[in-house]
Amino acid sequence: MSVKGLLLVGHGSRLQYNKELITTTAEMMKEHGGDYLIRSCFLEYSNPTVAEGLDLMRSEDLEILIVVPLFLAKGIHILRDIPKILGLEAGKKRGTFTLADGRVIPLVYAEPIGIDPLLAELMLKNAANALTLPEDA
Amino acid sequence: MSVKGLLLVGHGSRLQYNKELITTTAEMMKEHGGDYLIRSCFLEYSNPTVAEGLDLMRSEDLEILIVVPLFLAKGIHILRDIPKILGLEAGKKRGTFTLADGRVIPLVYAEPIGIDPLLAELMLKNAANALTLPEDA
Repeated sequence: MSVKGLLLVGHGSRLQYNKELITTTAEMMKEHGGDYLIRSCFLEYSNPTVAEGLDLMRSEDLEILIVVPLFLAKGIHILRDIPKILGLEAGKKRGTFTLADGRVIPLVYAEPIGIDPLLAELMLKNAANALTLPEDA
Repeated sequence: MSVKGLLLVGHGSRLQYNKELITTTAEMMKEHGGDYLIRSCFLEYSNPTVAEGLDLMRSEDLEILIVVPLFLAKGIHILRDIPKILGLEAGKKRGTFTLADGRVIPLVYAEPIGIDPLLAELMLKNAANALTLPEDA
């Protein structure tokens, strides 16, 4: 049965933290997220690359591919670099994706985190946690 | 009466989106966040700079300053660049901050967004929204 593919794209980093964030978030999404087939990949420094992530998705029996950038806000990566790899026309959010068996399915490109009350909530939580740091922190 | 100061630090960008994200999140935090005096500043490209943000905070009647980085994960900016500007010892989360009137108050350095179920929730929301994009998106 066909499923919806969700490819989470992170920036990647020379340090391990960005990759940990992306892959753990992908795991949490699997727990909460219902019926997506979820994989993660990285624009720079970390593996798999976006091209490799797309190739992994190509062999799955997908009905649609949703590409979700785990970035804070629009910038050059979101507006230019990732769309280019996805083969999207400039400014477009919808394209197509060719599976390994030759079927062409829709591809949609989601927004980065952006302005959201959940983000404000997260920042207030981190601020409150900082107030409880031990004296020698 | 003394208040807790909260300085939100964003990356900044040559484009407007990062600044919009940081300043709007700061506004949302003011609405939801109770008793903090909140300002935002930027590490690169956007204004005010972190040094300018600290100077603005210096003239307030603060009892403590909480510096909250609106970054996704630890990286060089979080581990090295921002602590350096804050005058924190390497690896330390607690320091001091000298107000314009000479009083020395505690400074605490909060964590970036990091691994959090709220982030997974946000990504699933953005994925679901992408499925409802108009045909010509």
